Amino acid sequence: MGQTWTARNPEYAGVVRDSLSRQQMMTTLGARLTHLAPGEVDLSAPFDPRFGQQNGFWHAGAVSSLADSANGYAAFSLAPSGTDVLAVEFKINLLAPARGTEFIAQGRVLRPGKTLTVCRADVYAADAGERVLIATMLSTVIVRSIPIP
Amino acid sequence: MGQTWTARNPEYAGVVRDSLSRQQMMTTLGARLTHLAPGEVDLSAPFDPRFGQQNGFWHAGAVSSLADSANGYAAFSLAPSGTDVLAVEFKINLLAPARGTEFIAQGRVLRPGKTLTVCRADVYAADAGERVLIATMLSTVIVRSIPIP
Amino acid sequence: MGQTWTARNPEYAGVVRDSLSRQQMMTTLGARLTHLAPGEVDLSAPFDPRFGQQNGFWHAGAVSSLADSANGYAAFSLAPSGTDVLAVEFKINLLAPARGTEFIAQGRVLRPGKTLTVCRADVYAADAGERVLIATMLSTVIVRSIPIP
Amino acid sequence: MGQTWTARNPEYAGVVRDSLSRQQMMTTLGARLTHLAPGEVDLSAPFDPRFGQQNGFWHAGAVSSLADSANGYAAFSLAPSGTDVLAVEFKINLLAPARGTEFIAQGRVLRPGKTLTVCRADVYAADAGERVLIATMLSTVIVRSIPIP
Repeated sequence: MGQTWTARNPEYAGVVRDSLSRQQMMTTLGARLTHLAPGEVDLSAPFDPRFGQQNGFWHAGAVSSLADSANGYAAFSLAPSGTDVLAVEFKINLLAPARGTEFIAQGRVLRPGKTLTVCRADVYAADAGERVLIATMLSTVIVRSIPIP
Repeated sequence: MGQTWTARNPEYAGVVRDSLSRQQMMTTLGARLTHLAPGEVDLSAPFDPRFGQQNGFWHAGAVSSLADSANGYAAFSLAPSGTDVLAVEFKINLLAPARGTEFIAQGRVLRPGKTLTVCRADVYAADAGERVLIATMLSTVIVRSIPIP
Repeated sequence: MGQTWTARNPEYAGVVRDSLSRQQMMTTLGARLTHLAPGEVDLSAPFDPRFGQQNGFWHAGAVSSLADSANGYAAFSLAPSGTDVLAVEFKINLLAPARGTEFIAQGRVLRPGKTLTVCRADVYAADAGERVLIATMLSTVIVRSIPIP
Repeated sequence: MGQTWTARNPEYAGVVRDSLSRQQMMTTLGARLTHLAPGEVDLSAPFDPRFGQQNGFWHAGAVSSLADSANGYAAFSLAPSGTDVLAVEFKINLLAPARGTEFIAQGRVLRPGKTLTVCRADVYAADAGERVLIATMLSTVIVRSIPIP
């Protein structure tokens, strides 16, 4: 973390925004892009009971969706033009119940690669001005030439 | 896999169905319980473009949601009465694009424990009678006395 | 699991044995190849207090070493000639204390790929004829042309 | 990361050193404790060909052993007296070949808990004064009353 990267695609910001606008899952969750820099993507989404679990917290799958997209777009921001990205795998530790009015996933590239990029996302729950770290994710993302078959 | 377990709570089936009916995320995904036995839960959900990613496949977060719930309820089916379960962490490998008309997550307990239960879920995509393994998940689930604070 | 694969390299058995004989870590652990088929590798190692943890069980790192090598060679057995493999990442759940006189890791390919191969390993501890499942690992392995830079 | 924690056991330093001295695996790897503070443990080990893989790099299992112990002792440094710790699971991403003369694992507690503690370790390879991040691990550690059965 704290490392800075250089985008290979000068159009990276537009390309990320364009792809994100086509990610129906993010639209459905109400996610917004709140930070974008080479190798760095923050996504925020409001609490919505439609994505809750049995105790009314956000479902671990909703937390994972937001973190997975933040990591995927962090990786995508460093990818050459004419490529797309796909998550190969990820692992998430759920550190505290996903209780709050807003959730923020901060995806950061740890190691960009020609084929594989590794990212880490921290997810925070915000409530009345307080922020709690509720999850952390490690992801492996593959960069592929378009079209992905 | 292939192991059989004995439920400690004779009411396990009702308790699982009841909790699942309160999981808004599963209702939102259109998930149905298609198999329930001690330590075994299958959940199915139809493809819905609202949960897609940028290429129109199901989002990795939707796949994870279904698998996480299948594993959580597999663990819950073996828990004593008066308890609830929470996912502590999981890891998913996405083996093929989530392309299909229906997705089936088969959650199975690998090792039930007093505090922690470890589960594995395999996720299949079905299309025109064909089934493809698209993901596999390993989860750690904690069993807690109700109420979870 | 239970799936059968076809080796692309007719010399796969010799190539696996040759590479394994150069893995100093496996020699140091006293590991032996006890099963080899396309996409399937079993490795066994005796308990040795030099690889113990503070309670005298086998260290999680020793369990991981054996499982990682079993998965790596399972992937390697399906790789074309002129390639080598490297673990990209793995996740292990430690299901029971690694107590026993012998440890057996069974690495199996779940999905072979041109670039990435995903494997699962189950690790058993044997003691006086009894076998206990002590760990399960999911690995992502990358196949690269030789020489790996 | 960057967070500071308070030890519940005033004797934590002695307790960590004592347990580490009984971890045969760390002695075998030649690991030394190079940093100890509440929730923070650094372990260093020299390259030794006995723990190599087929290309002469350090084996992923050796990297995992060092990182797992760094995380376990980071968790242990925050545990109450009369307890012991056991890794429940971990996931490691191998970011670069483990090539160097010395390896340093920095284990840090992300969230300490009464039952479960989550830690992150970054592993560096040092060579001629240069340091490369070669791996990152997320671990779940369980705190148990002594004796662990």
